[in-house]
Amino acid sequence: MLSTDIVDPLFTIFEGVSFMLVEGKHYRTIWPNKDLSGVIIIDQTLLPFEFKLGELTSLDEVVEAIKFMRVRGAPLIGVTGAYGIAIALTNNSTDQSLTDAKKKLIESRPTAVNLSWAVNLVFDQLKKEVRSNRASMAWKLANKLANEDIKTNQSIGEFGLKLIHKVKKSRINILTHCNAGWLATIDYGTALSPIYKAFKEGLDIHVWVDETRPRNQGMNLTAWELGQENIPHTIITDNAGGLLMQRGEVDFVIVGADRISIDGNVCNKIGTYLKALAAKTHKIPFYVAAPLSTIDSSYHDENNLFDIECRDEDEILKIKGMDASNNLTEVKIGYSSAYNPAFDITPAKYVSKIICEKGIYNPSDIREALE
Amino acid sequence: MLSTDIVDPLFTIFEGVSFMLVEGKHYRTIWPNKDLSGVIIIDQTLLPFEFKLGELTSLDEVVEAIKFMRVRGAPLIGVTGAYGIAIALTNNSTDQSLTDAKKKLIESRPTAVNLSWAVNLVFDQLKKEVRSNRASMAWKLANKLANEDIKTNQSIGEFGLKLIHKVKKSRINILTHCNAGWLATIDYGTALSPIYKAFKEGLDIHVWVDETRPRNQGMNLTAWELGQENIPHTIITDNAGGLLMQRGEVDFVIVGADRISIDGNVCNKIGTYLKALAAKTHKIPFYVAAPLSTIDSSYHDENNLFDIECRDEDEILKIKGMDASNNLTEVKIGYSSAYNPAFDITPAKYVSKIICEKGIYNPSDIREALE
Repeated sequence: MLSTDIVDPLFTIFEGVSFMLVEGKHYRTIWPNKDLSGVIIIDQTLLPFEFKLGELTSLDEVVEAIKFMRVRGAPLIGVTGAYGIAIALTNNSTDQSLTDAKKKLIESRPTAVNLSWAVNLVFDQLKKEVRSNRASMAWKLANKLANEDIKTNQSIGEFGLKLIHKVKKSRINILTHCNAGWLATIDYGTALSPIYKAFKEGLDIHVWVDETRPRNQGMNLTAWELGQENIPHTIITDNAGGLLMQRGEVDFVIVGADRISIDGNVCNKIGTYLKALAAKTHKIPFYVAAPLSTIDSSYHDENNLFDIECRDEDEILKIKGMDASNNLTEVKIGYSSAYNPAFDITPAKYVSKIICEKGIYNPSDIREALE
Repeated sequence: MLSTDIVDPLFTIFEGVSFMLVEGKHYRTIWPNKDLSGVIIIDQTLLPFEFKLGELTSLDEVVEAIKFMRVRGAPLIGVTGAYGIAIALTNNSTDQSLTDAKKKLIESRPTAVNLSWAVNLVFDQLKKEVRSNRASMAWKLANKLANEDIKTNQSIGEFGLKLIHKVKKSRINILTHCNAGWLATIDYGTALSPIYKAFKEGLDIHVWVDETRPRNQGMNLTAWELGQENIPHTIITDNAGGLLMQRGEVDFVIVGADRISIDGNVCNKIGTYLKALAAKTHKIPFYVAAPLSTIDSSYHDENNLFDIECRDEDEILKIKGMDASNNLTEVKIGYSSAYNPAFDITPAKYVSKIICEKGIYNPSDIREALE
């Protein structure tokens, strides 16, 4: 367990910025440790029960943190992959080490395209470098990606805010699924970025937070980060969104994405698709907010054939919470076998707009953003 | 805690039958105790962790059991309401006692119409009776309703089986939400009744069981009762159904109902509507199986205005499971406030067929079944 007061000096060192608050202090989700031997992360598996930092100083620790979802969210695991390369090269700067690191990191989670995007980007620049320069350059590249992520998310927030302004109501009810907030990125978030902007502008907003089974990233992470920023929000079960839309209590839906095909189909947390169908039925805008690095530029998906990661059934059959003595306890809640696909696919025709750092696009036109 | 070997003699006394198995022994969900001073129930809040019988000997205990969902499922709470009248009159056979019992029971859960249907039916017959006859007649009426429920469910099973026969596949994948099995009725179930029939006939069926947050009646009850009957099944999150339908892994959906309007709109467990929308999108049949007592014959619902019960937020924010020492433990999993509507409305146009004891109906024609 690390002291939290090491955070600010590090941001200064790397000329980074940070916006989001944890108990009134600014944080990012990941940053280099003092001697550039590793990174500090917020261990997201412990939220909202405990705010605990962790340190990763080997490639294996980085891979474990991604697989076990101590860090998660497509943009954050992309940058974590880049830092993973830096850590691997700090420990061993050979070609073999670089190639191994790339392979292990990309395989750690198969669906989010940002991970392979970031890892390949860093790899391609480093493989040409002499060994002695690799580690320091890797740290610089990873920090650059982290800082760019924040700028990207600020842009997404500004464009998304324009869509929020179109809702002509005194109170605006927004539904979101999973966590595409600052915890899913380096800072500021993707789907939540316009919400943070709207709140800072003084708009009266309220967020319906899908709990997002099985890992409950909505209840655990989205509700927690909105709470830290004092934004009005209410947890609902994943089942409740249909009724809320039926009753006019949702003005728009906004979610992130783990991978977007070049034809605008959106792969995101399991359950996103059901909300998109309900939004379409009730003529409620359904927005996807994601950086351009989420777009799989080579992939057409006319048959909804994204490679969907299936995770362990215990994510459904067991759950952690605080017992009566305030001990974080895992309990077994299910006794049959379970099937646990982590993502689903929302075809482009159910997506109203994709918001990225370059603007607001119809999903069928998203290739234009890459040009 | 009661011994389970009192079950069979009681069934003999009341000339009832029982089909469904718990560890190889036949059970109903509710039956009168030996001296007709109360009823024995399976405490469904403890499943699948513990199979425990409970005894209810006062009106207040019956009301508590319904509110706390020790007994649940529209058909079962209907019959429980009838037994509640019998218990109240056994303790006090005055007009006041009868009227009070009716009021308290109907108010114990607002949405399921079967409850008011059964309570009113018993009330109307008893109010004309002399006090000395009331208690014994009430027991007879309640037992009659219980036996009729089983016959009704057998018919639903036979009609539903005809729909299963229409699936021309070697393996048939069925998705169900919540629990409309024998635990939701006296025996045999509504939505699961055709599945039991199909399995007994030797069809190769497999059931996708929605966990059904927040109370997890799918994971806790449906999976448990299918397991007791050795029917292949897999638990999924409520979020997963869309992806499964997208990938052709669902042949039809079948659910129960808590209230059906005369124009065929179906009020059922929260989340049902999202599955119906997905089924419609993928041209998968969406069946509702329910006894005629579920139909609110006076109610047109063109604007989806069913009275939806909202339950305590702690149903979302806390959950029970077995800890590492095999103690049933409640843990707190959420820290923001939560909104917990218990049902939603599936408009008739998303329902392929309603299966009741009189046959298979288009939802818009369901009034014909009442004629």
